[in-house]
Amino acid sequence: MKGLSVRAKGVSASAIREILKVTEKPGIISLAGGLPSPLLFPVQQVKSALVDLMQTAPEPCLQYGPTEGVVELREWVANAHSSAEHPLSADNVLITTGSQQALDLLSKALIDPGDRVLMENPSYLGAIQAMSLYQPNFEVLPEQDGMMDVVALAAQAKSAKLIYLNPNFQNPTGRLMDQKTRESLAQYIRKFDQVLIEDDPYGEIQFEPHKLPSLRSLCPKNTVYLGSFSKILAPGLRVGYVIAEPAMVRTLTLLKQSADLHTPSLNQWLVLTLLRSGVYGHQIEVVRRHYGAQCARMLSAMKAYFPSEVKWTAPRGGMFVWCELPACVNATELLAQAIGQKVAFVPGEYFYIQQPKTHTMRLSFATTAPEKMDAAMKVLGKLIANRMAEATQYDTAGK
Amino acid sequence: MKGLSVRAKGVSASAIREILKVTEKPGIISLAGGLPSPLLFPVQQVKSALVDLMQTAPEPCLQYGPTEGVVELREWVANAHSSAEHPLSADNVLITTGSQQALDLLSKALIDPGDRVLMENPSYLGAIQAMSLYQPNFEVLPEQDGMMDVVALAAQAKSAKLIYLNPNFQNPTGRLMDQKTRESLAQYIRKFDQVLIEDDPYGEIQFEPHKLPSLRSLCPKNTVYLGSFSKILAPGLRVGYVIAEPAMVRTLTLLKQSADLHTPSLNQWLVLTLLRSGVYGHQIEVVRRHYGAQCARMLSAMKAYFPSEVKWTAPRGGMFVWCELPACVNATELLAQAIGQKVAFVPGEYFYIQQPKTHTMRLSFATTAPEKMDAAMKVLGKLIANRMAEATQYDTAGK
Repeated sequence: MKGLSVRAKGVSASAIREILKVTEKPGIISLAGGLPSPLLFPVQQVKSALVDLMQTAPEPCLQYGPTEGVVELREWVANAHSSAEHPLSADNVLITTGSQQALDLLSKALIDPGDRVLMENPSYLGAIQAMSLYQPNFEVLPEQDGMMDVVALAAQAKSAKLIYLNPNFQNPTGRLMDQKTRESLAQYIRKFDQVLIEDDPYGEIQFEPHKLPSLRSLCPKNTVYLGSFSKILAPGLRVGYVIAEPAMVRTLTLLKQSADLHTPSLNQWLVLTLLRSGVYGHQIEVVRRHYGAQCARMLSAMKAYFPSEVKWTAPRGGMFVWCELPACVNATELLAQAIGQKVAFVPGEYFYIQQPKTHTMRLSFATTAPEKMDAAMKVLGKLIANRMAEATQYDTAGK
Repeated sequence: MKGLSVRAKGVSASAIREILKVTEKPGIISLAGGLPSPLLFPVQQVKSALVDLMQTAPEPCLQYGPTEGVVELREWVANAHSSAEHPLSADNVLITTGSQQALDLLSKALIDPGDRVLMENPSYLGAIQAMSLYQPNFEVLPEQDGMMDVVALAAQAKSAKLIYLNPNFQNPTGRLMDQKTRESLAQYIRKFDQVLIEDDPYGEIQFEPHKLPSLRSLCPKNTVYLGSFSKILAPGLRVGYVIAEPAMVRTLTLLKQSADLHTPSLNQWLVLTLLRSGVYGHQIEVVRRHYGAQCARMLSAMKAYFPSEVKWTAPRGGMFVWCELPACVNATELLAQAIGQKVAFVPGEYFYIQQPKTHTMRLSFATTAPEKMDAAMKVLGKLIANRMAEATQYDTAGK
């Protein structure tokens, strides 16, 4: 298109966006989206909080507010993430319009064209897209046996601009970074004074309590931590936050001022009211229990209906199961067939920054009703088996 | 700061931001901010709409939504701005997180480093800041007798990347672009196939009905129009919109996806409810009447208390009066003294992209109670007179 910037010319519609449009059609059982379950939205509590705010403090909800966010909300976040060792204040916190905005602001703040950005492969697509606009070179974090190889990292990556990670129940793989990797990564980060973005939208959704230390707690000076209220309260409010050193918060605040002046005041006061009244704490428990049961149901249906050659992760939290199909099964082709039978998912290849594996897929267990889950897994299991049989035939025919 | 991008290193705290912090202190009569009057917020109607939404349609308010915005709201905007000659559909509309976000997205979409961007001098600071991040060269639109000189423009500006304008009650000058200038500008824009950003947050706040045609209506293919609900309903909701050709809307949508996924669903449904129920139409009348009276009060107090050497605009709408002091009076120095007497305003020099006039100031009439307005003008008038007298003394002493 005439007149676009170089940056904008490089942007194209994401395949996932197109897939999600298809999956919104009525009658489709969708395992594709990353939507939280609307069954869990605390509607009555939101309503009461809104009425209360309009009765007692309408002006701060409706007026312009500070770019950094409502100070009481920043203080709440600071307190919730403080420890005796690393106390935090409101100066460490910026409220953002969802944590997606934080990814854009951080990319603006840090990335010059050609800068080296390290991330897992596959990684969260929203981060890849936000950073891509600022033209970095993406590199894959080294791995060994499915876990990050920090020794190899130290040898390779001293001059990288930043490392991006999703250590808790990663999107798309559902993977949880173990304690040992966290500790050795933090040691590396501190030693080489690296910038680390710890993106943590799913951290609270752990099915059993096994709180591992955040990377932020292990290397606080180097970490920019991104949190969100979307997965526990409601994503439609678009309230997230950044925790970082005050100097970084100030830089991001200046950039946020140009981006949207501030996150909507009403939404910040609403979230604060739900935090203070204990609704948030209660919701964490509700979400953990529900998603834990959903995940177990999906895994047992996969066990029942999927060919034994298929491998999958057994997540301990979050919203996603990651499947590795036999190499002969192309997940994008599988999706086309699945949609014909009213089931949708996201092929895994779109989450890779390089060397995409076309025989992978991401399945969300968050929103599908149990009986539909079984039906969907049955459909997918049969389609996978059919494609495997076809591949064997070709193989045999070709011999 | 170590590790920042070139772009972020160039960003500094705006002087106005620092000034506004001072003016928030209790007891200050502030003519500085661009805040709408909270007296006019339709609190009861907002409350009813929120209750209604939570009772009848909580899920779309709380769930993720489409990046383009709620389709019913996009349709409302399209209908409101359609004409028989230039019909619009939802495809022409993107909902943004305030119209500030549109400025960021448009800068991303259009500006490569070194691109020529033409705007009035002075101009809206938020636009200057948003565009600056993408490193354009700003140029001043040519003027003659205080109005844009389109003939000179045609000679100079063929290769400019874009033109940014605030034709209705400009921030900071309060100026309204006349019909003839609109028509000849539109002719130029069409002839040279220029991109025009028409930023129009104040268009509805006209004290007497004298609806001039929007630039968009005169050159629809070339114009990206920015609208906002902040000034009529409530800025704390952060809901604005872009009207443009569908291809531009698609490009901005892709960029918005990385910026914040979408504007909060709750806020969009709330605005739509207020539009449909007629609250918005009623508010336009309330805001026009109130600001008209506020403006008249400010102008008559200026007439009563300001030295006759001071010149000012007599706005026919919007929120601001622009003052030109005698050249010997530095408005930033005047502000320091005024704050000592509990009155604040914004010195005009900060709104210039070049050759700042230090003897100008912007006064907002939106929020100050009538009796305080008189008191503030009395203080300012006296301080200006004192500074003029001092300047004359120096002059005489120097001779």
